[in-house]
Amino acid sequence: MNRLGVIAFVGAATAFVVTMQITIGRAGDEGSPIFGVQIPAGYPEWELIAPSHETCSFNELRGILGNAVSTKAYRDGTLPFPDGAILAELAWKHEPSPEFPGAFIPGHNTTVQIMVKDSKKFASTGGWGFGRFIDSKAVDRAQQETCFACHQANVKDHDFVFTRFAP
Amino acid sequence: MNRLGVIAFVGAATAFVVTMQITIGRAGDEGSPIFGVQIPAGYPEWELIAPSHETCSFNELRGILGNAVSTKAYRDGTLPFPDGAILAELAWKHEPSPEFPGAFIPGHNTTVQIMVKDSKKFASTGGWGFGRFIDSKAVDRAQQETCFACHQANVKDHDFVFTRFAP
Repeated sequence: MNRLGVIAFVGAATAFVVTMQITIGRAGDEGSPIFGVQIPAGYPEWELIAPSHETCSFNELRGILGNAVSTKAYRDGTLPFPDGAILAELAWKHEPSPEFPGAFIPGHNTTVQIMVKDSKKFASTGGWGFGRFIDSKAVDRAQQETCFACHQANVKDHDFVFTRFAP
Repeated sequence: MNRLGVIAFVGAATAFVVTMQITIGRAGDEGSPIFGVQIPAGYPEWELIAPSHETCSFNELRGILGNAVSTKAYRDGTLPFPDGAILAELAWKHEPSPEFPGAFIPGHNTTVQIMVKDSKKFASTGGWGFGRFIDSKAVDRAQQETCFACHQANVKDHDFVFTRFAP
């Protein structure tokens, strides 16, 4: 392989790896309406950024996980998050533990919500693409349309991301 | 190397790896009273088993993480957990989000609690060694003495482990 060939090969391999990281879903899955965001492979093994508890109509326990690009940005204090950062929010019903009075544990999984940073592709929504999934299926367009407005209204100064690294 | 030599070498290498996994703490740190359990290196990057919410006097959000031995056991449904399984429970005060009404997020870190499975070393406490740490320092003996009794009273049938894998 000559030098250009090597560059082309490396470029193709890099593109393949990047593609693998940010667009892995089921074959033929078009991802979320509007954004085309898919559930990233391997996300359950990502690092915990923070747990959270949503009361009111949600009544959920959540765990927000981040890929390596996002956790590095959190640790370095980098804002805005760099392209390639992905956050995955896993939500379960907030249910009483049958084994310890006063403790609450995850009930059934309600949603998996994904945020993918791609400042060019998602330029009109702060650089973030959103995906909301129930039982691994993307929700309808109407539900998907509400994501950015809420993030924009509340956490514009934290690059539209609610979650902080738990201390 | 003859056959016995190979076995001895593999045995020594295995012991080294297991030792590395379960006794990494600060140099000179004796670990928790009674058990000598230390805070394992790299635990913040372990996989999330489940979040939890402790009300009453605790008022905490928690994230329970597991090392690879423990997550494999959870996925395979292996009980009792095999030697080398380690669980790390991170706890923070349950505080209202200043950015989203009705949401609660981690406040300051209250404790890190470690469970290490070693069926021989900790035979008298169900095979588990316990460590409770505040600001990376082990709590006193009196606090440490209460761990096993509570696990034994409530979750004897789940190998003395409260946490289930979040679905």
